[in-house]
Amino acid sequence: MERDISILKETALFKDLTVEQIRNLLSISKKVLFSENDIIIKEGEVGDTMHIMLEGTVEVAKSLIIEGMDNKITGKDKVFTKLNVGQHAVFGEITLLEECRRTATVRAVTDCVLYEIKKDDFLRLAGEDYELGYRVLLNLSRIVSSRLRKADEDTIKLTTVLSIILKEL
Amino acid sequence: MERDISILKETALFKDLTVEQIRNLLSISKKVLFSENDIIIKEGEVGDTMHIMLEGTVEVAKSLIIEGMDNKITGKDKVFTKLNVGQHAVFGEITLLEECRRTATVRAVTDCVLYEIKKDDFLRLAGEDYELGYRVLLNLSRIVSSRLRKADEDTIKLTTVLSIILKEL
Repeated sequence: MERDISILKETALFKDLTVEQIRNLLSISKKVLFSENDIIIKEGEVGDTMHIMLEGTVEVAKSLIIEGMDNKITGKDKVFTKLNVGQHAVFGEITLLEECRRTATVRAVTDCVLYEIKKDDFLRLAGEDYELGYRVLLNLSRIVSSRLRKADEDTIKLTTVLSIILKEL
Repeated sequence: MERDISILKETALFKDLTVEQIRNLLSISKKVLFSENDIIIKEGEVGDTMHIMLEGTVEVAKSLIIEGMDNKITGKDKVFTKLNVGQHAVFGEITLLEECRRTATVRAVTDCVLYEIKKDDFLRLAGEDYELGYRVLLNLSRIVSSRLRKADEDTIKLTTVLSIILKEL
């Protein structure tokens, strides 16, 4: 239990929370086990559950091409990252806010243990303890806004490359 | 005052707040006036202030090309949108979380009246009233996450177009 509390406190999502608040979050968390090669999250599916890694290593794969187009999805159209508990890995934080379509596939590379937190349980807890809700959402919205900045930069880079290529044609 | 309260309650950022909470937000807001053609926000500058439109019309322009590259920025490399109070326009909500670089330029098309809220004032108020802080951040993080989804879709579309063009070359 003490180890789990310190793992949660190390994540960007739950930093600045008191031990008591982390305990309350653990009370709505469920420990789940996955075997090597299990799919934990599948890109494209709708989910309402976030995950926090406790043990093991996972691989994150994201397709970069629209499915169903002329060019089929192959391994090389995907980006892969490997993550383990040392990286304070958390997946699907945005599902705490609203059900949403998974933007990547997460596969267990080794046997894995994770905590699951469901959106409705989190929103109920946050509605009972606004300080906890405020602190988690301040962290979450900073995480999401930094991803948005990165995505906007990617869009500008891609648009620039495209405009250069189109001028050359 | 009553009109301002109802304008704030109509925005996606402040919906679900009580009239009392909106009054507290107004107590940290400053009314600012801009003349026709004034620049309200300048793309690329760092800011710590969000704006809510009360009167007038503004134009939002965003460059789509990396500055300083071979192809200079011209009007056609920008996207324009016009916004007025009827659209419950709010700019720079993300500055409530952290200082950040402006991603677009906002120019007054007519004389305009706006409310300004500074990051430090908002975070102080939210730290005194966690329920207010929680509700605003729940709205804000949903707004930002929906923009992130849109940006991710744009990246996938642009990557797909690029990969098709590169195969044809």
